[in-house]
Amino acid sequence: MASELNPAKTGSVDMTPSEIHYFQSYNHHGIHEEMLKDEVRTNSYKNAIYQNRHLFKDKIVLDVGCGTSILSMFAAKAGAKHVYAVDMSTIIEKAREIVAVNGMADKITLIQGKMEEIQLPVDKVDIIISEWMGYFLLYESMLDTVLLARDKYLAPGGLIFPDKASIYMAAIEDGDYKEEKIGFWNNVYGFDFTPLQGTALAEPLVDTVDLKAVVTDPCLVLSLDLYTVKPSDLAFTAPFDLAVRRNDFIHALIAWFDIDFSACHKPIKFSTGPHAKYTHWKQTVFYLDDVLTVKNGEHLQGVLSSKPTEKNRRDLDVKIEYVFQGEDHDRSNRGVCLFKMC
Amino acid sequence: MASELNPAKTGSVDMTPSEIHYFQSYNHHGIHEEMLKDEVRTNSYKNAIYQNRHLFKDKIVLDVGCGTSILSMFAAKAGAKHVYAVDMSTIIEKAREIVAVNGMADKITLIQGKMEEIQLPVDKVDIIISEWMGYFLLYESMLDTVLLARDKYLAPGGLIFPDKASIYMAAIEDGDYKEEKIGFWNNVYGFDFTPLQGTALAEPLVDTVDLKAVVTDPCLVLSLDLYTVKPSDLAFTAPFDLAVRRNDFIHALIAWFDIDFSACHKPIKFSTGPHAKYTHWKQTVFYLDDVLTVKNGEHLQGVLSSKPTEKNRRDLDVKIEYVFQGEDHDRSNRGVCLFKMC
Repeated sequence: MASELNPAKTGSVDMTPSEIHYFQSYNHHGIHEEMLKDEVRTNSYKNAIYQNRHLFKDKIVLDVGCGTSILSMFAAKAGAKHVYAVDMSTIIEKAREIVAVNGMADKITLIQGKMEEIQLPVDKVDIIISEWMGYFLLYESMLDTVLLARDKYLAPGGLIFPDKASIYMAAIEDGDYKEEKIGFWNNVYGFDFTPLQGTALAEPLVDTVDLKAVVTDPCLVLSLDLYTVKPSDLAFTAPFDLAVRRNDFIHALIAWFDIDFSACHKPIKFSTGPHAKYTHWKQTVFYLDDVLTVKNGEHLQGVLSSKPTEKNRRDLDVKIEYVFQGEDHDRSNRGVCLFKMC
Repeated sequence: MASELNPAKTGSVDMTPSEIHYFQSYNHHGIHEEMLKDEVRTNSYKNAIYQNRHLFKDKIVLDVGCGTSILSMFAAKAGAKHVYAVDMSTIIEKAREIVAVNGMADKITLIQGKMEEIQLPVDKVDIIISEWMGYFLLYESMLDTVLLARDKYLAPGGLIFPDKASIYMAAIEDGDYKEEKIGFWNNVYGFDFTPLQGTALAEPLVDTVDLKAVVTDPCLVLSLDLYTVKPSDLAFTAPFDLAVRRNDFIHALIAWFDIDFSACHKPIKFSTGPHAKYTHWKQTVFYLDDVLTVKNGEHLQGVLSSKPTEKNRRDLDVKIEYVFQGEDHDRSNRGVCLFKMC
């Protein structure tokens, strides 16, 4: 049955403007259209579910942040006994219509509300499915909410789809674009706009990086196991060591993430890296203050730190500290770059 | 002197979440980068001001919604005695730095606050400059605020830059894109998502329209004289009559606007139409429920209505009623399409 539980509607007085805006941005069909049209993303979930009907048959499933309910319908079609689908945004009203028109209203219960506030009609679920990943994996991500659902509702031995997420970094040459983006502020219709240069550099860029621009090997910086990770692990500090693969310049570091559904009979994974097929997450680009002159075989080392900002837990403060020493002693750089994703 | 008047900061409790979000969206440098990089827009203002130094010399100028203060600096450089620049968003902090680094802190006073709430240090100004136009001219536009500033501060005989704005419509053939955009919802990974088709149609698209797609002559639907227009005029109902110029199909109506600086010695204007050079406003596309089969010489007639929504004055409710009668009596259409820009 389609539930009408609506304990907290968007706009309730106990949410900050940022929270309201976050949820309201998902009211709009356009963001769902973009996510549905992301075939790598959606087909990965579809395949992970459809190729593992033996795992879903007769099970109780929870879809955290269900949006238009596509994942819930995959699960119902794969044989789930019942699916509880939770979302804060008003898109859930459209999801109810979609579920009904596909004849699954008896299999999928849609509940509008915050996971933290609603109460499911069952004590435990067998499987949690969720597409929670944000840019740079953790920006505006729903992961805290998924972990809360896990701790509150997942039965012992229950499954999480997907269950692994990893962040990778690499370094890129991006001279032309950086010059254009940063250099632009030097002369704006005859005026000095350099006070905005720092702002332009301080914000990571979400963009599709050409594989040809990548100058180093990738480096794994964070690995999350959704069965065991704690909310406190989402603020992390991780060292990196990037092996330079050709003589070139380094203007920026990039980050992306990989997702694994390892419970699958044939494990399914997808990557959002520059080597992989396009996804709407693209890659995240962090411009360094310096330009590094690097040679094949050298190493760019450093530390990546990321934590939710104090003002808004869905925003991130990112710090990249780096040290580089070339073979010749006149090539050396070090720096600390601060970024805000907001 | 750069003023530190900050009577109302973004986030004060008497603003709705929508208001806060509107102002906060201008805190971000990216939106200003897009507007500054719009050369048609910015060069039009630059030329209107620089080519009319005789109008600006020794005058008191008010810049409504100054953003990064580019227009204020044009005015100061053109010889204004003093410029008062008002903006609600925190970008004004960066504007203060920009004005200072360009040595104009003695000529430009930047005031953070809502035009409705602040009090200028002068009773009257000689010239109001403002870039207030939104998509479809009036979506999220600042025009109400400009009119308030005019009524409160503009001296008798004072000038407004720009002083005229006009909305035009035309009809286009857009079969492929409409099919892709609307048809997409028929089958989403094997599910019927048609409940989202209505939503997709109900929201106008802001996009660059190829001139080759335009099937009719343009038609003027609204003409605003900034010296005399009243806030109540911004909710309007206007008839249109579109003359078909070739045998084709009509899938959508488009709207754009023209801007005039008619006080100029040599009048300056720019258009955001499909025939004109790119601007960040692009054109606004309204998909009809029907597809009309039309022949050269026939007419598509109707009425365009637009008004601020009740919930949020920066959003628009748009209604397009149309009637079409082809030469052959078996080609006729009529319809009423409702749109929301939010």
